[in-house]
Amino acid sequence: MPLSQGDTARRIPISSEEQTLIEQVLRPGLTTRTTLAGDLEVSPAWITKTITPLIERGILTETGSAAHSGGRRARTLGFHPDVGLLLGVDFGATHLDIALAGPDLQVLARRSAVLDIADGPDTCLATLSGLVDDVLREQQLPIEQIRGIGVGVPGPVDFTRGRLTSPPIMPGWDDFPLPEKLMEQFPAAFVVVDNDVNLMALGERFHGQGQSSPNFIYVKVGSGIGAGIVVDGHLYRGSSGCAGDIGHIVVAQDGPACHCGNKGCVEALAGGQAIAEQARELAESGDSPLLAERLRAAGGFLTAEDVGAAAVQGDRAALELVDRSGRYVGEMLTTLVYFFNPDLILIGGGVSRIGHRFLNAIRQTVLAHASPLATRALQIEYSELGREAGVLGALTLAQQSIFYIPPA
Amino acid sequence: MPLSQGDTARRIPISSEEQTLIEQVLRPGLTTRTTLAGDLEVSPAWITKTITPLIERGILTETGSAAHSGGRRARTLGFHPDVGLLLGVDFGATHLDIALAGPDLQVLARRSAVLDIADGPDTCLATLSGLVDDVLREQQLPIEQIRGIGVGVPGPVDFTRGRLTSPPIMPGWDDFPLPEKLMEQFPAAFVVVDNDVNLMALGERFHGQGQSSPNFIYVKVGSGIGAGIVVDGHLYRGSSGCAGDIGHIVVAQDGPACHCGNKGCVEALAGGQAIAEQARELAESGDSPLLAERLRAAGGFLTAEDVGAAAVQGDRAALELVDRSGRYVGEMLTTLVYFFNPDLILIGGGVSRIGHRFLNAIRQTVLAHASPLATRALQIEYSELGREAGVLGALTLAQQSIFYIPPA
Repeated sequence: MPLSQGDTARRIPISSEEQTLIEQVLRPGLTTRTTLAGDLEVSPAWITKTITPLIERGILTETGSAAHSGGRRARTLGFHPDVGLLLGVDFGATHLDIALAGPDLQVLARRSAVLDIADGPDTCLATLSGLVDDVLREQQLPIEQIRGIGVGVPGPVDFTRGRLTSPPIMPGWDDFPLPEKLMEQFPAAFVVVDNDVNLMALGERFHGQGQSSPNFIYVKVGSGIGAGIVVDGHLYRGSSGCAGDIGHIVVAQDGPACHCGNKGCVEALAGGQAIAEQARELAESGDSPLLAERLRAAGGFLTAEDVGAAAVQGDRAALELVDRSGRYVGEMLTTLVYFFNPDLILIGGGVSRIGHRFLNAIRQTVLAHASPLATRALQIEYSELGREAGVLGALTLAQQSIFYIPPA
Repeated sequence: MPLSQGDTARRIPISSEEQTLIEQVLRPGLTTRTTLAGDLEVSPAWITKTITPLIERGILTETGSAAHSGGRRARTLGFHPDVGLLLGVDFGATHLDIALAGPDLQVLARRSAVLDIADGPDTCLATLSGLVDDVLREQQLPIEQIRGIGVGVPGPVDFTRGRLTSPPIMPGWDDFPLPEKLMEQFPAAFVVVDNDVNLMALGERFHGQGQSSPNFIYVKVGSGIGAGIVVDGHLYRGSSGCAGDIGHIVVAQDGPACHCGNKGCVEALAGGQAIAEQARELAESGDSPLLAERLRAAGGFLTAEDVGAAAVQGDRAALELVDRSGRYVGEMLTTLVYFFNPDLILIGGGVSRIGHRFLNAIRQTVLAHASPLATRALQIEYSELGREAGVLGALTLAQQSIFYIPPA
């Protein structure tokens, strides 16, 4: 929970005993003084002693009533609304999603906008301001009530500083002081920035199919390919914060050149942009009549979804493209399965809209090449949350960052 | 610390408060009541209340005296000798190392033997018995004093049951009830079995270069290639206990057939056996005069060490073999660096005796192909502990398994 990113002055200091208690309240499910005493194996007296200052400080509150269990009704514990509001922000290559929520993560409002992340921070932050102003006006809330902001961005993040580090698709964002800029704009909020795919994994861990998997990999197959890694229930960021940068794993030594300077990276073969380019070639060469038709209808632009639709209609070249792309992703994942032995791989990102044949090709490749022991209990699934995982993960990161333990 | 493997009846039940305290005592460095109170942020009264029953039960003891710090001398806490002895056992493909130690891991005696793990469990366990008898006789200790045994084996282990699962180089060991057999032989000991490379990583974490690296990969390049993974300071075994099975990551799609059924696995190109076979071919074809000479001198058998020696003497074919093998290992590691972003990769196993040119080739390949962000703080080093890491890791696993918290 303690993060060095952002300004601790805007976060809430607590003791380590209080943290132990609050971590229980953060978990899914109803919390009462009785469940706390049981889960933490402590006495009711310890609970009372620890909880009273938290209630007096307006951090926790007891509301409603849990299910009747014999005696008097137990009141459920939650965060006091005065803790403030949380804002989740998910910047994608071409979209911005935001969600405003209370400290218990009950979502009050959402907004989305189309943008081009390559337009740079000024333009993109102006779009963000517009969405936030709109939401605050609608909810009749002052900006000062926003106490915490989690932000996902589509590039590598130095997590200790909250800054992008040479992001390949984000010109103008390298080393941009995003936490500082947002803290100027939001006068009461701390800001925590992370890679968008990490936040999708976090969203899946707390709100999606990852809830019952302690060790899983979330793979985003969008224009690029990246992964978020959950180890023993926690997001694993690696030593420099760039774990999961799997798009440049080589799957074909003689493959096409990648923008990273190497050849045959999985992203250059099976990412959304690579698939779209191969689709256009198949359309223009006449190898795929159905893709040619779609290219004319779409005005010169094809997506992975077009390829999937043509494949469903039996277009041979489109079928081969789907299978080949799935095989490349499957070969990369085979390597990760050998190394990491996860129990779940979730596939999200725009390319997952290509259809289930792609997922089948991935699964078959992994099953054919990874060891039986590693694949015995392995699930490979499409994400059901889809894009929503990003903004939910951003909210969750903000929630996990509200409190900090001051150094002794 | 809680393991489902082995018989809890032979382990020592403690409460969760006691576990908190004992985990501090297990850490390196001197522990006193004062350091405990500081590290755990608890009151001296809590320490006294928790520690007294542990001392009365003969689990902890206060001995010697820590450095003088003004007032009366603080006495250092450690395990009482009555906790019993620990036995570390490291089975390799062709060796057996054992070490007998007290509960604080002070080593009393070591023994080693040459064996062939493919001779099966009966023969190998007889060799183990011989070494243990010898050590106990020398130390004049009864077998009943051995209270915990950690065992490393060169194959995949189902860690919940302590059994090998289809080990490729260990005929006769598949599903062999190793914990049960050893518990028959050692009447007072619990037994915990793990993969040998995991235990080497654990040994490096607690006694070697891994002590200051929270996220590292230990890579054993022996006859085969495998890895042990440390995440946030703890051994990561994966969902089925087979994480780190990296020998079958494909690095050359058109490479030679591997015993696993795939083609171009890194183990089939750069493992010790693969290097030895290529060396023999170079000797027999006349491509390497120096290796031919060594082959004659060695009576038809070459090792990675021979290749390294020929390379140092300038043998062109040997130099190429060293460089090529290092490149293949480096390509495999590049993939892992993208995914896992470790701060340290330790290389051990017999092939590391090939010399530093091999390590150089690995480093150059990783630096040339992985991202600058991921390699910024990455160290790639040969293990200094060498083979000793295995038996030290086995002792550490035994030590970590002495205590358990009974289910409520």
